Amino acid sequence: MICIIMGSESDLKIAEKAVNVLKEFGVEFEVRVASAHRTPELVEEIVKNSKADVFIAIAGLAAHLPGVIASLTTKPVIAVPVDAKLDGLDALLSIVQMPPGIPVASVGIDRGENAAILALEILALKDENIAKKLAEYREKMKKKVYASDEKVREMFKLD
Amino acid sequence: MICIIMGSESDLKIAEKAVNVLKEFGVEFEVRVASAHRTPELVEEIVKNSKADVFIAIAGLAAHLPGVIASLTTKPVIAVPVDAKLDGLDALLSIVQMPPGIPVASVGIDRGENAAILALEILALKDENIAKKLAEYREKMKKKVYASDEKVREMFKLD
Amino acid sequence: MICIIMGSESDLKIAEKAVNVLKEFGVEFEVRVASAHRTPELVEEIVKNSKADVFIAIAGLAAHLPGVIASLTTKPVIAVPVDAKLDGLDALLSIVQMPPGIPVASVGIDRGENAAILALEILALKDENIAKKLAEYREKMKKKVYASDEKVREMFKLD
Amino acid sequence: MICIIMGSESDLKIAEKAVNVLKEFGVEFEVRVASAHRTPELVEEIVKNSKADVFIAIAGLAAHLPGVIASLTTKPVIAVPVDAKLDGLDALLSIVQMPPGIPVASVGIDRGENAAILALEILALKDENIAKKLAEYREKMKKKVYASDEKVREMFKLD
Amino acid sequence: MICIIMGSESDLKIAEKAVNVLKEFGVEFEVRVASAHRTPELVEEIVKNSKADVFIAIAGLAAHLPGVIASLTTKPVIAVPVDAKLDGLDALLSIVQMPPGIPVASVGIDRGENAAILALEILALKDENIAKKLAEYREKMKKKVYASDEKVREMFKLD
Amino acid sequence: MICIIMGSESDLKIAEKAVNVLKEFGVEFEVRVASAHRTPELVEEIVKNSKADVFIAIAGLAAHLPGVIASLTTKPVIAVPVDAKLDGLDALLSIVQMPPGIPVASVGIDRGENAAILALEILALKDENIAKKLAEYREKMKKKVYASDEKVREMFKLD
Amino acid sequence: MICIIMGSESDLKIAEKAVNVLKEFGVEFEVRVASAHRTPELVEEIVKNSKADVFIAIAGLAAHLPGVIASLTTKPVIAVPVDAKLDGLDALLSIVQMPPGIPVASVGIDRGENAAILALEILALKDENIAKKLAEYREKMKKKVYASDEKVREMFKLD
Amino acid sequence: MICIIMGSESDLKIAEKAVNVLKEFGVEFEVRVASAHRTPELVEEIVKNSKADVFIAIAGLAAHLPGVIASLTTKPVIAVPVDAKLDGLDALLSIVQMPPGIPVASVGIDRGENAAILALEILALKDENIAKKLAEYREKMKKKVYASDEKVREMFKLD
Repeated sequence: MICIIMGSESDLKIAEKAVNVLKEFGVEFEVRVASAHRTPELVEEIVKNSKADVFIAIAGLAAHLPGVIASLTTKPVIAVPVDAKLDGLDALLSIVQMPPGIPVASVGIDRGENAAILALEILALKDENIAKKLAEYREKMKKKVYASDEKVREMFKLD
Repeated sequence: MICIIMGSESDLKIAEKAVNVLKEFGVEFEVRVASAHRTPELVEEIVKNSKADVFIAIAGLAAHLPGVIASLTTKPVIAVPVDAKLDGLDALLSIVQMPPGIPVASVGIDRGENAAILALEILALKDENIAKKLAEYREKMKKKVYASDEKVREMFKLD
Repeated sequence: MICIIMGSESDLKIAEKAVNVLKEFGVEFEVRVASAHRTPELVEEIVKNSKADVFIAIAGLAAHLPGVIASLTTKPVIAVPVDAKLDGLDALLSIVQMPPGIPVASVGIDRGENAAILALEILALKDENIAKKLAEYREKMKKKVYASDEKVREMFKLD
Repeated sequence: MICIIMGSESDLKIAEKAVNVLKEFGVEFEVRVASAHRTPELVEEIVKNSKADVFIAIAGLAAHLPGVIASLTTKPVIAVPVDAKLDGLDALLSIVQMPPGIPVASVGIDRGENAAILALEILALKDENIAKKLAEYREKMKKKVYASDEKVREMFKLD
Repeated sequence: MICIIMGSESDLKIAEKAVNVLKEFGVEFEVRVASAHRTPELVEEIVKNSKADVFIAIAGLAAHLPGVIASLTTKPVIAVPVDAKLDGLDALLSIVQMPPGIPVASVGIDRGENAAILALEILALKDENIAKKLAEYREKMKKKVYASDEKVREMFKLD
Repeated sequence: MICIIMGSESDLKIAEKAVNVLKEFGVEFEVRVASAHRTPELVEEIVKNSKADVFIAIAGLAAHLPGVIASLTTKPVIAVPVDAKLDGLDALLSIVQMPPGIPVASVGIDRGENAAILALEILALKDENIAKKLAEYREKMKKKVYASDEKVREMFKLD
Repeated sequence: MICIIMGSESDLKIAEKAVNVLKEFGVEFEVRVASAHRTPELVEEIVKNSKADVFIAIAGLAAHLPGVIASLTTKPVIAVPVDAKLDGLDALLSIVQMPPGIPVASVGIDRGENAAILALEILALKDENIAKKLAEYREKMKKKVYASDEKVREMFKLD
Repeated sequence: MICIIMGSESDLKIAEKAVNVLKEFGVEFEVRVASAHRTPELVEEIVKNSKADVFIAIAGLAAHLPGVIASLTTKPVIAVPVDAKLDGLDALLSIVQMPPGIPVASVGIDRGENAAILALEILALKDENIAKKLAEYREKMKKKVYASDEKVREMFKLD
């Protein structure tokens, strides 16, 4: 089970990128809103009661949510820095520069889909079905690139 | 009363800059070490039990400590971003870019002394004695600049 | 009393974020425009004559206004760096990197509301009424997050 | 099993941080050197033949190694950006900004130990023994912070 | 012959800047889409089979494509960092900071036309016809600047 | 006399900011377009033949124009970095970081008006009329700030 | 006459770079220390009483000194951003990003010598002697480069 | 023939990295010192008279040398940004962000050896001997990585 927590409802679009991937894979998940600063006790409640194997934390600005979650569990915490200001550089550094001992796994700025795939890669270690679907997902991406290649080659073909 | 919390013992030098100012002013203070990520419950215990009027939080890297303290109290929280990597830019952004509703007051990178003076400026609003000492402190700084000016003027005086 | 000074009329939108919070709290305040570079004597006049306990300075670019105010008073000076160029990084560094002895308390880029709340946290140290309202304000924020959480959980509930 | 690959022998110190953690946990691992640019076929050979559940990739500068590994496997890839120039910002961005579909999990700059712990958190999902040790590891870190707190409190105790 | 490879169809506009220059020069070229991460084997196939003298690689974000091409050939590889996020700084650093031994030639962010001209300058070393056309191209640019100068001088002429 | 040179017609809007100030002051000026890279000989011709006391150079990206002008004259060269990419940070650094011996005077990003005023401050050293007008110009700016202050005070006046 | 003001005695080394150039040119100058924040009235006193034609302001961190000087005079103000933290980027942005109407002329980070030369270029507009010496100074620099060229050519000459 | 031009004798160490590679390949080269700002006429003389097929320009700070060379020739110009300040970011942006029409090929910061190899890759297009040596050079690099891999595997082998 994957638990997606976003720091504010304004992060919904990034969360939906993750949700869409998880739906496509048919994996169980829950989506929550909890602010590290306004509702630390809600974050704690969610993390302590969740049956999630992996947490996905989505946050912008001084993005403390992923680190706060990581401080409450030894389950893997994947973080998506959100571009709310400074192109998301503030969120990226707030997330990735965790001190020794309490890691957070950062994916790229606004990259909700990659957080989901990374979570699936982790689940796939004990679920062959997901592993198989990941391979198929890659195959599909591959085909899209090949199709683009075909299309672009035609577009610029010299007569 | 002022409560200084540093995220790790390695921030001691920056904390001492603040301590030296507070000692000079004869103001009561306590100094604590508590990690937002390794010991969130210790941070909570300190903040909830402290009789501090103002908190000074000192932290580097993904510096969440000031924000975590701010989430636990409505007392003013002053933060010192510490240069542990990236010239302290990671800590500065992790501290200053707090979301709406939960402010943290950031001073400059490694500027422990300024955190102390800012805390004293706040206490001075209800303590005339501190206000008087702050004025004297400024006067002393002023005199040092005037002395530097005198010295340097001489140094480069044309005959 | 809180004195809000913005460096230019173009900072009005950020000032209004602060004003809205202060009005909600029913705290006395004044709002002024004074440029550190074009009207240093107006800045001086305002600061020297104001009965403010706390100053909020709002400025972009080479944002010297907060530092100039801080050089004229030992009252706490809270600063809001405004994004006029470079995502506000120029204003942030111009504000936060004050030299030893004259601190300025920086909040986040364009974060007028947080400057107001920080000012209220300071006033609350000698005004229990404000302290009570701050606690209520937090409670209200908390409820909004819980409501968001409820809403989002429903939105993604699996049948 | 965890496979650590560094891009160059010069990354050895960062790799050792990871190794020390893995040794402490008694988890099986291998350590390899393979350059994404000089020996792409060696990277491929290692990744395709490894029995690793999780890969840890350590690289500086235009740090392509983690992405290249991720393109060859659907196992989780954890990356450590190394500070070889520009405080490691080049490596961080080269690593974390992966395009949609092929995620890499970045930890902080030079943070080899956190890569190892993150890898262990992933393995712990199917190995209760590791999960137990992770909890103990946290407990140990916690104790160190409490000891620091005790020491620093004493150091600054007023008589 | 020049081979243009873009990392994704979304880079088409930048590729067209290069294509337009190459068409104007009447030089043979091919345009391909191949992702370093989704289709490494397609990149390899293109590079190994291409008769190109020079490769132009166009990519954004963690832009590994140019480096991957460079690892597969000793032909010159010219790279165009694309602004997909962070103003293209992530792509620039991912491209230009190649380790010793495997160079990539970076031109400016989104500068597809300059990649083409650089490629032509290289081909011109063994093709006098291209060299002559490059000189004419410069002459044409020169004339445009002179025309601008004439126009602007008139515009601001004092009577 | 002041000579304004812009690197490309696309910098016209920034040049007009300078022109408007110079027209208001009734000072003689010329406006030219010359590219440091496409027409170095035109830059040389302009600089060598101009009767200008001060040069204003306006350029974006790898903004070499101001430095090239400075290498051709010992008259003061004022530069305006233009935001064409990266918020103008590339142009600022290309302009301001001149090596020892050949200075360029940089004003702020896109700040054409300030380049003109700085040029006027220089001319005023030998032209009392300009000096007087500069004082009046400041007075006018001052009045605008006072008017803003008046307006904003009213706007937020409590009844 | 040139007036050099540094914000703190710690900027002495940068000031000396300027002094050495001015001494070589035999131009009259004074050197002062005055802090924009600790001694604004000293800055005002110096600027208002100085007979300087040009001011050189040297400051690091939130470097407000040049802007404060510029607010007090319409004489040209040249600024040297000092690297005290963040490689001097904070000082550069605090100096160069002045608002419309009050320009400051920034030279490169720590580039005291260039501030002096720029000041001399300004003075040379009404002093032919300085103009002549500037031409000679350039000639001397030129010769040093030619000598370096000669030396390096020899060094790598093939037999 | 390859012509290496450095902007100042202080760039010698970076130039030597290029020289060492060229010597190893037995390719003809010359090494010159010429400053774009102090000796533009020397740069012009060198470029116009050189029989070089490829230019390598090495420069720091506001690194205009490569662009100035590119404005004087249609031969390929490879540039090495040198870290003299700001970790070399100023030089990188001054070099790489060339305007449309006049490209410069940037390699990584301080990467003299890569400039040489890139130059050799260009020469190899019409010199099979160099092409063969480049392949051997890669083979040698490859072997070094394999040796490192062997060594490190042993180092961490579990008994």
